[in-house]
Amino acid sequence: MSGERLIYLPLGGAGEIGMNAYVYGYGPKGRERLILVDLGVAFPDMDTSPGVDLVLPDISWLAKNINRLEAIFITHAHEDHIGALAHLWPSLRKPIYARTFTATIGRLKFEEAGLPKDAITTVAARPHVIEAGPFKVQFVPVSHSIPESAALIIDTPAGRIIHSGDFKRDATPIVGEGWDDALMQQIAAERPVKALMCDSTNVFSLHEGRSESTLKGPIAELIKSASGMVVATTFASNVARLKTLAEAGHAAGRTVCLLGRAMKRMVSAAEESGVLPQFPRTVTAEEAAEVPRRNLMLIVTGSQGERRAASAQLSRGKYLGLEMKEGDMFLFSSKTIPGNEKEVGRVINAMSAIGVDIVEDSGGKYHVSGHANRPDLEHVHRLFLPDMLLPMHGEHRHLREHVRIAHEAGIAAAVATNGMMMDISGDFPQLAEQIEASRTYLDGSVLVGSMDGVVRDRIRMALNGKVMVTVILDENDQPLGEAWVELMGLPANGKGGRPLAETLEADLTEFLESSGKKILTNDDKMDEALRRIVRQVAMEEIGKKPEVTVVISRLAME
Amino acid sequence: MSGERLIYLPLGGAGEIGMNAYVYGYGPKGRERLILVDLGVAFPDMDTSPGVDLVLPDISWLAKNINRLEAIFITHAHEDHIGALAHLWPSLRKPIYARTFTATIGRLKFEEAGLPKDAITTVAARPHVIEAGPFKVQFVPVSHSIPESAALIIDTPAGRIIHSGDFKRDATPIVGEGWDDALMQQIAAERPVKALMCDSTNVFSLHEGRSESTLKGPIAELIKSASGMVVATTFASNVARLKTLAEAGHAAGRTVCLLGRAMKRMVSAAEESGVLPQFPRTVTAEEAAEVPRRNLMLIVTGSQGERRAASAQLSRGKYLGLEMKEGDMFLFSSKTIPGNEKEVGRVINAMSAIGVDIVEDSGGKYHVSGHANRPDLEHVHRLFLPDMLLPMHGEHRHLREHVRIAHEAGIAAAVATNGMMMDISGDFPQLAEQIEASRTYLDGSVLVGSMDGVVRDRIRMALNGKVMVTVILDENDQPLGEAWVELMGLPANGKGGRPLAETLEADLTEFLESSGKKILTNDDKMDEALRRIVRQVAMEEIGKKPEVTVVISRLAME
Repeated sequence: MSGERLIYLPLGGAGEIGMNAYVYGYGPKGRERLILVDLGVAFPDMDTSPGVDLVLPDISWLAKNINRLEAIFITHAHEDHIGALAHLWPSLRKPIYARTFTATIGRLKFEEAGLPKDAITTVAARPHVIEAGPFKVQFVPVSHSIPESAALIIDTPAGRIIHSGDFKRDATPIVGEGWDDALMQQIAAERPVKALMCDSTNVFSLHEGRSESTLKGPIAELIKSASGMVVATTFASNVARLKTLAEAGHAAGRTVCLLGRAMKRMVSAAEESGVLPQFPRTVTAEEAAEVPRRNLMLIVTGSQGERRAASAQLSRGKYLGLEMKEGDMFLFSSKTIPGNEKEVGRVINAMSAIGVDIVEDSGGKYHVSGHANRPDLEHVHRLFLPDMLLPMHGEHRHLREHVRIAHEAGIAAAVATNGMMMDISGDFPQLAEQIEASRTYLDGSVLVGSMDGVVRDRIRMALNGKVMVTVILDENDQPLGEAWVELMGLPANGKGGRPLAETLEADLTEFLESSGKKILTNDDKMDEALRRIVRQVAMEEIGKKPEVTVVISRLAME
Repeated sequence: MSGERLIYLPLGGAGEIGMNAYVYGYGPKGRERLILVDLGVAFPDMDTSPGVDLVLPDISWLAKNINRLEAIFITHAHEDHIGALAHLWPSLRKPIYARTFTATIGRLKFEEAGLPKDAITTVAARPHVIEAGPFKVQFVPVSHSIPESAALIIDTPAGRIIHSGDFKRDATPIVGEGWDDALMQQIAAERPVKALMCDSTNVFSLHEGRSESTLKGPIAELIKSASGMVVATTFASNVARLKTLAEAGHAAGRTVCLLGRAMKRMVSAAEESGVLPQFPRTVTAEEAAEVPRRNLMLIVTGSQGERRAASAQLSRGKYLGLEMKEGDMFLFSSKTIPGNEKEVGRVINAMSAIGVDIVEDSGGKYHVSGHANRPDLEHVHRLFLPDMLLPMHGEHRHLREHVRIAHEAGIAAAVATNGMMMDISGDFPQLAEQIEASRTYLDGSVLVGSMDGVVRDRIRMALNGKVMVTVILDENDQPLGEAWVELMGLPANGKGGRPLAETLEADLTEFLESSGKKILTNDDKMDEALRRIVRQVAMEEIGKKPEVTVVISRLAME
């Protein structure tokens, strides 16, 4: 078997939280057969990716080696694991395997994108085995904050890999299979685990994780105590939480209404997949509008303050005939993902201004995380006793901390971030090659490389404003009329209240009139000179150097 | 005294955290004599104010009533209380009063701005009284996270007002005067308190606040345990913390170096003002570079991940000859202000990649807040027993919660956000008038109104990209050559890989060639039509509607 090697290559999700995409390979060096696990998105922001719709992994390495790719496996239906599938599959076109609920969500996406739904194969959980080249893959049910999350057993001629996916150790997760220590022990006993690729999200949470089921009592009690309308938000895909919330509403004698497209879609996908047999009865928004507010509970999207989600809409006024009023209660059964504080704050303050009583998750009473905390991670290390551990699903600090605790337990481990191809054939992980793996932006309907400069230019315009200069030269290379300046995103007036455009036009025209043939016949030189003047004059007038576009038109003799 | 009234008008800081500015008035309705308390800034962000340098209160109401303004009082030298002074004073030009340290910082700002330093008068603490029209004002020392913070006693013919400023109840604040319950009781006994305007920042912190002095032991212990270089960051103006950190460094046998302009400036202003008699010896960066790293401690700016501050510079590599290495320790003796999580995360991850051990404040061991928590606020309510309470320094949710706890204690209270002029002459606060009070942006060297559209246009360009169209028409209103298109912040290619600019140019030219006189002689119509075509074609090609500027040049017969 010498000459064959086993490799691991994260293309997303290692060194960041989001856009998960992990490649495994086995075979002769440089000709390994490959599988891809997950293909998720991350979300754009104004600071780094204004105007972008979605952030996707850069799969150009995979596309270049497309003939080596056997199959794609999706561990669960969270957007950061499945969200890029419909956008990037057209350049991969390999079979996709997932469990029922995940496959249902995947097919909805494929349908919307006009892609062949039969590319996605629904598979049963272990002991069912999917063969893909040299790989034998089994889906192992784990508990998480979405139905049917799975860890993968990836058997290769070089040994067994456990790819944890996203998980928590929850024996009573309300919906779907609980975490099963005995099952994991059995898996480890069956064949030694060579490598564990492990979720690192909550490595800094030092207490043991709590079960989804612990929320039932407190949430029921809280809703029972409310006198006005109750509105609760959580992540749309947390179907178990939706069930807990809806049941608590019913128990308090309230009619329940789900608001928000994503939420309704998740519940119906869960029902269709058979993972949610007894979701309480809900009514439409129209029906809800007829229910007295003390008998009504809304469960809404927008736990992260998203501008267009139901919670933000309700914070701004009437939405689908429903309206929050003084004395209503709004429950965040969720946590604010770092970076979303301002958006969530905006919603809370708007509701505060209406007079709504806001209940944020205080000390985990109304929300628990879907990821394993440090003591649970340590427990799982002991269950699998892997030869080596490669932490994934985390920023660099999470991966590094996870490596540290693995080392403490005597397990070989290394930080491998996006683009680091690791040779895991031996006793410990070794860097084999560094692959170019940045990001791809879905921008409108176009895929744009993050290094293409498109977004950089947008950021520059946002920071510096924009000046457009138009110059017309006649057949003799002489300026025809004055230079024309248009501003966008810049103050109209500069020093002493003078209109900035006029000042610029005067200075540009003066320059052109005093320039000789050497400048006037050379577009590049003229462009550069005009640009320099604009930036210099703007600096004097408004203290800023704007972005400048110069358009030089020459009237040719025809 | 009938016909006279007492008013309170927040222009900033009420309904947001930042840019504090509060107006008090006494006199006949509409002709009240006024004083202004604080004139601070807020910080811009990419989401709402890209390219902006500082966010300032909108003082146009005050400027319009400038003849009624008597004086300006600054409670302390934090940027959100003093930062706008040098930018907005030129349109106020009234005497400024502050305690020594605050006045020192104020004069540094005036000096830099070329403003007269003698506009700022240094005043002693109570019992010293400053008379300003009908107001008699005393500065009462309170503990906070900066030297010489003050509450104000504002005596008026209609009663005594206590303006709390920013404060915490800390009897042992390391630097400066501690909070003194007896003094506050004396103030309340001297003359009943009509109104308490009170800091609301930490109204949601349910435990009693802890003293600055509690950090000494844990910080000293932590630094003693370090083996590599130690780098610590905190807010530059927290001079007490700087002292604690520097002393802990010395105690561990380390040479201490301050890095970052703001920090050095604060320490020297504190020394100059006499509030910091014994700051430990520090060395320059050049000297520090010669010290073995196990004997070195840097105290640096950038606790909020600011890109150009020392901590971010160090996370990216060598800075002023100094460099972090594997095994060094980085201590955040600070908290991350909501909204700055991503920036701080970036610094932490970059340091993690170097191999630095990061110590974040865990459970308040290495950082305490400078604001009073809820039990402390309640204690202060009881000390002053005001007739009414107007919460300030908080977002809407903070103000509302503060009103709620005041009501629980039987105190009249109301939420008054920026622009709400409250009549406080009677037994409870009443809305007298709603004033237009938005925000002013310092943008480069220009002050721009937040509603002027400048920033809105920048955001649009950032989200949508920009297309510039140039069209030249001859003397007969016929297009001369083709339409010319320049793109910025847009993908170069649309559907099927066609260059977007070429597609646009072809479609625009075709439109112009098929247009009659009615369009070609009318700039407005042509502009509108061309703009519509660009947006429509771009939508088809790239799925986005860009911002469009059309420049139509006409060759006139001369």
